[in-house]
Amino acid sequence: GNNVKTTIAKVGNYVEQEVTIGAWLANKRSSGKIAFLQLRDGTGFIQGVVVKAEVGEEAFQAAKNLTQESSLYVTGTVRADDRAPSGYELTVTKVEVIHEATDYPITPKEHGTEFLMDHRHLWLRSKRQHAVMKVRNEIIRATYEFFNQNDFSKVDPPILTGSAPEGTTELFATKYFDEDAYLSQSGQLYMEAAAMALGRVFSFGPTFRAEKSKTRRHLIEFWMIEPEMAFVEFDESLEIQEQYVSYLAKSVLENCQLELKTLGRDTEKLEKVQAPFPRISYDDAITFLHEKGFDDIKWGDDFGAPHETAIAEHYDKPVFITHYPTSLKPFYMQPDANREDVVLCADLIAPEGYGEIIGGSERIHSYELLEQRINEHNLSLDTYQWYLDLRKYGSVPHSGFGLGLERTVAWLSGVEHVRESIPFPRLLNRLYP
Amino acid sequence: GNNVKTTIAKVGNYVEQEVTIGAWLANKRSSGKIAFLQLRDGTGFIQGVVVKAEVGEEAFQAAKNLTQESSLYVTGTVRADDRAPSGYELTVTKVEVIHEATDYPITPKEHGTEFLMDHRHLWLRSKRQHAVMKVRNEIIRATYEFFNQNDFSKVDPPILTGSAPEGTTELFATKYFDEDAYLSQSGQLYMEAAAMALGRVFSFGPTFRAEKSKTRRHLIEFWMIEPEMAFVEFDESLEIQEQYVSYLAKSVLENCQLELKTLGRDTEKLEKVQAPFPRISYDDAITFLHEKGFDDIKWGDDFGAPHETAIAEHYDKPVFITHYPTSLKPFYMQPDANREDVVLCADLIAPEGYGEIIGGSERIHSYELLEQRINEHNLSLDTYQWYLDLRKYGSVPHSGFGLGLERTVAWLSGVEHVRESIPFPRLLNRLYP
Ligand SMILES: [Mg+2]
Ligand SMILES: [Mg+2]
Repeated sequence: GNNVKTTIAKVGNYVEQEVTIGAWLANKRSSGKIAFLQLRDGTGFIQGVVVKAEVGEEAFQAAKNLTQESSLYVTGTVRADDRAPSGYELTVTKVEVIHEATDYPITPKEHGTEFLMDHRHLWLRSKRQHAVMKVRNEIIRATYEFFNQNDFSKVDPPILTGSAPEGTTELFATKYFDEDAYLSQSGQLYMEAAAMALGRVFSFGPTFRAEKSKTRRHLIEFWMIEPEMAFVEFDESLEIQEQYVSYLAKSVLENCQLELKTLGRDTEKLEKVQAPFPRISYDDAITFLHEKGFDDIKWGDDFGAPHETAIAEHYDKPVFITHYPTSLKPFYMQPDANREDVVLCADLIAPEGYGEIIGGSERIHSYELLEQRINEHNLSLDTYQWYLDLRKYGSVPHSGFGLGLERTVAWLSGVEHVRESIPFPRLLNRLYP
Repeated sequence: GNNVKTTIAKVGNYVEQEVTIGAWLANKRSSGKIAFLQLRDGTGFIQGVVVKAEVGEEAFQAAKNLTQESSLYVTGTVRADDRAPSGYELTVTKVEVIHEATDYPITPKEHGTEFLMDHRHLWLRSKRQHAVMKVRNEIIRATYEFFNQNDFSKVDPPILTGSAPEGTTELFATKYFDEDAYLSQSGQLYMEAAAMALGRVFSFGPTFRAEKSKTRRHLIEFWMIEPEMAFVEFDESLEIQEQYVSYLAKSVLENCQLELKTLGRDTEKLEKVQAPFPRISYDDAITFLHEKGFDDIKWGDDFGAPHETAIAEHYDKPVFITHYPTSLKPFYMQPDANREDVVLCADLIAPEGYGEIIGGSERIHSYELLEQRINEHNLSLDTYQWYLDLRKYGSVPHSGFGLGLERTVAWLSGVEHVRESIPFPRLLNRLYP
């Protein structure tokens, strides 16, 4: 007929009108006279109500016999309904089956994680996974909006690099014609070069760590946002970070209300995520941990997940841990002017045990100091010549940071494991699908 | 003092006020009494005018002796000036040098391409390269805006995959713990799975082709935007493509006026890039080429760059070449219902010799046909089981396409070679910097 073709997300524009939607059957239940179809179309979920007395015996039976994940064009009248999660329902007048699914493997019953991961290409269709992907999309959208509004340019650093940074054991290597190449673990050094050309830049791309860890916070392939800012010193960088993370939380709260409900996310906790965030120095964090009874850590040691969680639990916002010992951090961080043994760096620890979501620092601006650090770390001056050049030709104070997308998605969505926060996770024994 | 700190892009907000800007010296010239500093800060370029009589002998000499690419905080009064490209000039009152550069290698004289590519980390600072990066940034910004406005979700397909698609010679391989893995050449198959979960999706990520070609259109590592749309058939997909590309051209025209001027881009040509775009079938394109005197091509052959250019020159907009022979295209394309020997596909050829910027098609929706094609192409059914599943559980008509970012940047910027359209190009013999 002449119905409007629309999507579930947009039915609110057509109340009391007849619309047609391309959809899949997510679930159903029925009595003798009425069938309730849980429909999904990728933009959302809606209940379609099929009343035998209105559609006739044949259409009613067809609707009743629809199998899970069959695809269909469904026509019906949009009704406002306060009891519906989305606020709308569809009084179905016609169902046209496109393709009948048989034996869809993911049924409403419980499935084991490995089974679901093997069927990730289908698992993504479920209400919960759909909601996580929508939150992820919103975080990405808000990231671009935030950095565009703040005059950052998007810069894409290379993925394939010819030089292996420190600790090559966690690098993926490949043959680049006759040379050896490695998959990027961070675009930061390139972003520093870009910042000297474009002022404020941010990247958004995949990074790779061949780590043999199997924790709920680790992925082999994950996405990072890496801003780098010329003429920005340590304190201003922290301000930009807390504004950015607050913007993400606010955007998700505003634009993913239904999804957060689906996920059972405690939104009161997210509402507290507003700049400024607390700051605690590494020194004070060590003292705090000792006071809390941790006797497995001393000054100079890195924090483990239990330490980060204990510190994070003391606050109801993300917390910056600042001024780590120089020996714990990479070669390029600017030392504190008053104390040689710590650097102008900060990790941002998310609340609720989600761990570190940002690592950042001011970068060394002195050529001599950077050269010294490269030598101390047994890195090759040849490899880093271009990076040293940035301190040779108009060096300026600059800072940057990297936010891990999947940990941020997991935190804001409230999902337990980062494997659910990326469409197709790559894990220690998982390269399929 | 109490000056406003701002950026060159924003000086228009401070006309006749004193501001301070962190900047680099791009170039300079001077007479006995007046020095003209070409300043850049990443957001733009501005001329600083230093008058001896106003700043005094010492400050004037310091400004006159500034070396290229030295970094400085410059303070001055913003003047509107119609002769300036940006419309503003700075009457300098104070110069504070941050770091003095010596012997900056890229001087205003001509340099060879290899030299410039070896210094890509510095070359990006030049006015022309800066302009190309700004156009690239605008294309990325407009891409997100377009797809967000049209209800697409951003989905990041995996880069590391366990299965080698057709033609493994052009794949980069790596060891994934005990398994073999390959770098993605396209996220399309994963985007199809995502479209069945989220309706309309788009990706934006790096792709890799270990091609031994050295043309002005090829990069080893390049970025693609790959939208995939459930319930969208061939014709509607073409409409979305022409709207998207028109949106990119319009956005660049509106928001990169200065950059297009710097690049000497003929903007009249870009103003014509408005939907709808012409369509020519592969059949008609072959006939057209024969009429133009090409005797090196017959039905069933793929087009080379000269053929594409000859066809493109016939139009003043991008042109879709549609309905290619099935044998020329990948296994997953939907055949034309009326003709088994051609598929529902289209390549979009940019004007002015920039070549193919989009490849797309409707995808096969029948399980049986897809299985047959996988067998015909000697691919493994095991590897593609998850992809076949999409046709087993609620298959729907769907289409998608991939736009090559660097070719699009090169075209809209008017730069000759794609190597200038990406921050750090990866070429046959180029993995540095
Ligand atoms: Mg840490
Ligand atoms: Mg082609």
